[in-house]
Amino acid sequence: MPTDLDAVLAALPLVDHHVHGASAVPLDRTAFETLITESDRPIPAFMTQFDSQLGFAIRRWCAPVLGLPAHASPGDYLARRAELGAAEVNRRLLAASGIGRFLVETGYRGDEVLDVAGMAAASGRPVAEIVRIERVLEEVAATGVSAAELPHRFRAELAARCADAVGLKSIVAYRHGFAFTPEPPAEREVVAAAGRWLADGAARVEDPVLLRFGLWTGVDQGLPIQLHTGYGDPDVELHLCDPLLLTRWLKLVEPYGVDVLLLHCYPYQRNAGYLAQVFPHVYFDVGLGVNYTGSRSDAVIAESLELAPFSKILFSSDAWGPAELHHLGAHLFRRGLGRALRGWVDAGEWTSADAIRVATMIGVTNALRVYGLEPTP
Amino acid sequence: MPTDLDAVLAALPLVDHHVHGASAVPLDRTAFETLITESDRPIPAFMTQFDSQLGFAIRRWCAPVLGLPAHASPGDYLARRAELGAAEVNRRLLAASGIGRFLVETGYRGDEVLDVAGMAAASGRPVAEIVRIERVLEEVAATGVSAAELPHRFRAELAARCADAVGLKSIVAYRHGFAFTPEPPAEREVVAAAGRWLADGAARVEDPVLLRFGLWTGVDQGLPIQLHTGYGDPDVELHLCDPLLLTRWLKLVEPYGVDVLLLHCYPYQRNAGYLAQVFPHVYFDVGLGVNYTGSRSDAVIAESLELAPFSKILFSSDAWGPAELHHLGAHLFRRGLGRALRGWVDAGEWTSADAIRVATMIGVTNALRVYGLEPTP
Amino acid sequence: MPTDLDAVLAALPLVDHHVHGASAVPLDRTAFETLITESDRPIPAFMTQFDSQLGFAIRRWCAPVLGLPAHASPGDYLARRAELGAAEVNRRLLAASGIGRFLVETGYRGDEVLDVAGMAAASGRPVAEIVRIERVLEEVAATGVSAAELPHRFRAELAARCADAVGLKSIVAYRHGFAFTPEPPAEREVVAAAGRWLADGAARVEDPVLLRFGLWTGVDQGLPIQLHTGYGDPDVELHLCDPLLLTRWLKLVEPYGVDVLLLHCYPYQRNAGYLAQVFPHVYFDVGLGVNYTGSRSDAVIAESLELAPFSKILFSSDAWGPAELHHLGAHLFRRGLGRALRGWVDAGEWTSADAIRVATMIGVTNALRVYGLEPTP
Repeated sequence: MPTDLDAVLAALPLVDHHVHGASAVPLDRTAFETLITESDRPIPAFMTQFDSQLGFAIRRWCAPVLGLPAHASPGDYLARRAELGAAEVNRRLLAASGIGRFLVETGYRGDEVLDVAGMAAASGRPVAEIVRIERVLEEVAATGVSAAELPHRFRAELAARCADAVGLKSIVAYRHGFAFTPEPPAEREVVAAAGRWLADGAARVEDPVLLRFGLWTGVDQGLPIQLHTGYGDPDVELHLCDPLLLTRWLKLVEPYGVDVLLLHCYPYQRNAGYLAQVFPHVYFDVGLGVNYTGSRSDAVIAESLELAPFSKILFSSDAWGPAELHHLGAHLFRRGLGRALRGWVDAGEWTSADAIRVATMIGVTNALRVYGLEPTP
Repeated sequence: MPTDLDAVLAALPLVDHHVHGASAVPLDRTAFETLITESDRPIPAFMTQFDSQLGFAIRRWCAPVLGLPAHASPGDYLARRAELGAAEVNRRLLAASGIGRFLVETGYRGDEVLDVAGMAAASGRPVAEIVRIERVLEEVAATGVSAAELPHRFRAELAARCADAVGLKSIVAYRHGFAFTPEPPAEREVVAAAGRWLADGAARVEDPVLLRFGLWTGVDQGLPIQLHTGYGDPDVELHLCDPLLLTRWLKLVEPYGVDVLLLHCYPYQRNAGYLAQVFPHVYFDVGLGVNYTGSRSDAVIAESLELAPFSKILFSSDAWGPAELHHLGAHLFRRGLGRALRGWVDAGEWTSADAIRVATMIGVTNALRVYGLEPTP
Repeated sequence: MPTDLDAVLAALPLVDHHVHGASAVPLDRTAFETLITESDRPIPAFMTQFDSQLGFAIRRWCAPVLGLPAHASPGDYLARRAELGAAEVNRRLLAASGIGRFLVETGYRGDEVLDVAGMAAASGRPVAEIVRIERVLEEVAATGVSAAELPHRFRAELAARCADAVGLKSIVAYRHGFAFTPEPPAEREVVAAAGRWLADGAARVEDPVLLRFGLWTGVDQGLPIQLHTGYGDPDVELHLCDPLLLTRWLKLVEPYGVDVLLLHCYPYQRNAGYLAQVFPHVYFDVGLGVNYTGSRSDAVIAESLELAPFSKILFSSDAWGPAELHHLGAHLFRRGLGRALRGWVDAGEWTSADAIRVATMIGVTNALRVYGLEPTP
């Protein structure tokens, strides 16, 4: 019989404050395996991505949601997945996740996954949008704008896109890392950099001046800003994505009254906890890393519960594509948070009431406050 | 019934080798909350610092010392604190800490907390002084000295201040970080830097030449030198306080026969353990981080017990202000060390006699040896 | 009664893919203590290296192999060791390790320890060779070669040495760290650097151009390349040995079809796990750190089981000298891996069959595949 804490954790209507759409198309084995790793390389013939913490967690926790025994083989799992069809798989996994609300970042290969409306339909839950700054910048560049016009046009477009959004996201981590000049660039620097970029075809924005321009224009919107930090695909140089490298930029942002949300952070979650303690506008989560560490995610979550005040920690799955990732993000988070808190309650260090209160803050209410959302019914 | 190891741990007369004075004035809720975080920002309206590992630990472990039930509410706790008065609160918390000796660093806002004599009176235990190098340098600068005189005057003043002290402390971590030229600066560089600093008002010393001059003058005193490393207030850029960045400086100090004590180190405690293994003159502790990680401090302490020989690990609380910090520093340290050692004894990996011996080294005798102190009666 | 997983783990014929020879000479207390630390400094009078995780592990686990009670005192242990003689000590400890095959790196003080044939004789197991690139470069330089001839002569010699080897090893970590230009140097740069080095006596190769030349010549051999990363003796500046600093170099090596094995990695094992996930040609182990963390090695091993697919993790002891290191490397690895896997099986997260399969991959079959070896009989 569950204790109150267990029951509360199981029922928490989590706010997944950084997530992407679920895949709505059939996925064969190769397609599925390439979506359960952050590697963008072909899967080597000598291995399967199912032989990983994430792969084992899918077989253990998602198989029963699809009506299979726990630990079903990869072949059986994917056959059952195909049999049910993407829509039913999504419906089951999203419902079983118990996620109460999704803040969907739409800027990454958005045409391959469900959009905001699609996620709302598939999950039956409220969905709000997070706008990816660099994507908007690239879209503006693709319209045939001149370098001189670009700053103004981008500002206008970003503001327009933010009208219906609840937050912004930056991937400067992927495009340059955090070793950048923290101050906003001068307008003429931006125009000069835009000129080079446009002349070059204006594909991926990687110029640090343009990235800083995007970031500071994001700050001007007044919405919370999410930053990818830490672990991700091989585009990152991981040591340049340590959130501590943002310290000077965070100090410059502080007077603007804008909240900054450090995403993922693995393996720098302790560093993020430091920033979240000393800076009132800094928050963090350990999404992404939770899914990919599977049976070890308890340890990652526990490390996130050190320096940061409990009002500064959030939940995200950072799922993209297979709804297994949305499901496991929530499942493993509930489990890891529960194991940590229950351990402290059982040892007499925390009261059960405090543990319930902290779980609710981290899982739900911190995000509602930061993003200015009403509780879901 | 406690095993022998439990009894020894509970009774260890810990040497708190890096600590500051306890607060001797009444603390209202705002004042108290600002003293239980390393943030120097006002507490945001949406949160309380009591909702943190440290806040929960205070309610759990300090409330009973003040005669309240464990887990008393923050309001009840602070009311009881006010009722007892600062002197009685200090007396109770310091006595219950079981700390046998305090090495008090007096250079940080020393007028707001008990001094060496005050700590001795409040605790009834022997107290010795640790001199903060940068504070002395700033005091000498404030006397109206010329740039040309400053090196000599500082050397003389530091030597005088060391006459009654048992060690030195540097906060170069806070003022510049560890990315500095490791060699001592030339005298003319020091004079030139002093000239600029004095012309500028000689407030906080932040010039790397002057900081290096302070550090090397510290080495010349022949006393053990403590360095703040790792976690601290937002003055630090935490990634620049990784003790590994001191490697070259440590190699230069090695021939001087001076012991170097790396303080706190969180989250770089494993890096500190490496330095303590390979360099005979390097020691470390995980103070500060223990208090601020509360229920997670066991994990931090366990990580400190990896590479370093057991003769190279020390105890500190790094408490400043509320005597809750002195108390918890000792309590959580005993608990975390005990849980690690007892686990290994119970698994048959260590003998109980070895565990007792190691606990005594880390808690007491290593510090006595390094600082040249006699055991307390 | 052991479960199947326990039995499998205990019997795994581990492939120790990075190890050195065992010491074949009598070791007095000073000699022995200097070989159970990565410090190269004299042991200070105030301490013994036996008071460390490694020292305690030797007394606990090796003493019974030599016919002593567990936890024998250092004095008793060394007396018994002397009584048995080096050959018998080696025979017992190597046999009890259950290591099925040794890949011996012969380039470090090879004249002081058993060579490939000696290790095969002492252990009764197959032994293959790993060639240390920098050692070969230094040997070529010592032959009286001219700067202009050096590139060609080194290429020929390295190729000759690789004829009977199964892999290469680089210690660029010790000689320069990983902050180097990742591209291969131009031939004229190599000749110029060789000229300076030869003129200077051509002792330790520390010039980054020559080290890069060595590394890229290693890549040209087509054999797997091992790189020391992370923890080691005080020659390293540990923060410059974070394997993440190799990211750009790893991307350049990727098209060559050469596997790269990141050795040790402590305390950067999580960073290594990231690289092993995203790059198909990258592998890692946590050898060396396992021995030196003793009772804490479970935690280090568990951290190695996070991001990396299970096909990308290997076993090594990195033992050099006392056969205690070979023995403990295997013993602690079996124990730590077993505790992690058994915990997940007991919690219902993994099947026992999967745990056995993963243990076999990490302990044996991954190494056989990477180095192109047949299973031992």
